[in-house]
Amino acid sequence: MSNPLSGNDMLARIADTLATRRPENGGDPQTSYVAKLLAKGPDAFLKKIGEEATELVMAAKDGDPERIVSETADLWFHCLVTLTHYNLRPEDVLAELARREGLSGLEEKARRPAS
Amino acid sequence: MSNPLSGNDMLARIADTLATRRPENGGDPQTSYVAKLLAKGPDAFLKKIGEEATELVMAAKDGDPERIVSETADLWFHCLVTLTHYNLRPEDVLAELARREGLSGLEEKARRPAS
Amino acid sequence: MSNPLSGNDMLARIADTLATRRPENGGDPQTSYVAKLLAKGPDAFLKKIGEEATELVMAAKDGDPERIVSETADLWFHCLVTLTHYNLRPEDVLAELARREGLSGLEEKARRPAS
Amino acid sequence: MSNPLSGNDMLARIADTLATRRPENGGDPQTSYVAKLLAKGPDAFLKKIGEEATELVMAAKDGDPERIVSETADLWFHCLVTLTHYNLRPEDVLAELARREGLSGLEEKARRPAS
Repeated sequence: MSNPLSGNDMLARIADTLATRRPENGGDPQTSYVAKLLAKGPDAFLKKIGEEATELVMAAKDGDPERIVSETADLWFHCLVTLTHYNLRPEDVLAELARREGLSGLEEKARRPAS
Repeated sequence: MSNPLSGNDMLARIADTLATRRPENGGDPQTSYVAKLLAKGPDAFLKKIGEEATELVMAAKDGDPERIVSETADLWFHCLVTLTHYNLRPEDVLAELARREGLSGLEEKARRPAS
Repeated sequence: MSNPLSGNDMLARIADTLATRRPENGGDPQTSYVAKLLAKGPDAFLKKIGEEATELVMAAKDGDPERIVSETADLWFHCLVTLTHYNLRPEDVLAELARREGLSGLEEKARRPAS
Repeated sequence: MSNPLSGNDMLARIADTLATRRPENGGDPQTSYVAKLLAKGPDAFLKKIGEEATELVMAAKDGDPERIVSETADLWFHCLVTLTHYNLRPEDVLAELARREGLSGLEEKARRPAS
């Protein structure tokens, strides 16, 4: 595998870590920011979605590449926390994006050279 | 490669497609929603960031898994459009997420079995 | 009364009008934008809150006074629609603002010359 | 005047107070929340617009009247801070709302009994 930061692996790995922060998995609100968000419940992390979306918009209006990347990371991170709370996975989101792009698994396989 | 929907590949592939919708790459606002957004400029797609973030929050408040996935996909998609406009890549965001998680490429390699 | 655009009167008057657009008051979704929003239910107008908030942020980042005023008007308007749906009034919001400012009715009266 | 909390007076009075918190008017970031926001500049208070809009949406989804009023007050308050920064007034927003409602000062006078 040539790409050590393959995104699915990355998003899935972060999701794996976030799952360990769930209260029922022993996530400790005292030591973990995510465990605290998950223990507080939806409003705590959904508020961050609105906040980070606004910060991304402001960074983009400033045309500041570093902040655009950083705020997008913040936003996606809190999306991953949200998915975790609802027992959903980034793979579900990626599959939905794939579906919309018309890139079904079969099509995709067909387009690839045999490995 | 065993995962046909590897997320990095997926996000990178969508980003590749979005790049072809840029005005200077011949994106046609008449036939492509993304080309239209990119031609209109930042306010057009940044407004969608705020809108989709709010829709995600509402879907989450309803605890509706399908809509949570669908709205997250909408939100990420418009983030990808935003990145495209600013000549940025989802890989930049994933690298930032990796950096925060303390999963640098080197650490990651060290944790993997030799392939 | 010297001010024909007294804000309380203005907000209250708009709220009075909006109330007539409620489905049970005969608001007609075919002819009225507000009646349509109220008939569709919360997600329809709450989505506008997120959208208009983002547009206000963008107008402010542009430092464009006309758009700042226009987008704030849009945002407040959809707040008034929201209040209408929940049987609340702008006066409730103004009273809350007054309370926070420590300007209770009594203090206010005390500060005024006898009329 | 029968209404001690007339809204225009209320919004205008809050705006008057906020104006005194501007850095050039001696607003002290050490002692005043608003002076701190205004000293930090647009991103500080615009971020709050996005945050409070999201909190209003969540309160509305919960159908919680007290929080709807409280979050709307928060949102309008930070709109007033924004207007203050850009040398705008709530009266400007109310006039825009009046204009849209077709309630020009003249129409309004015509509808009133002579005082």
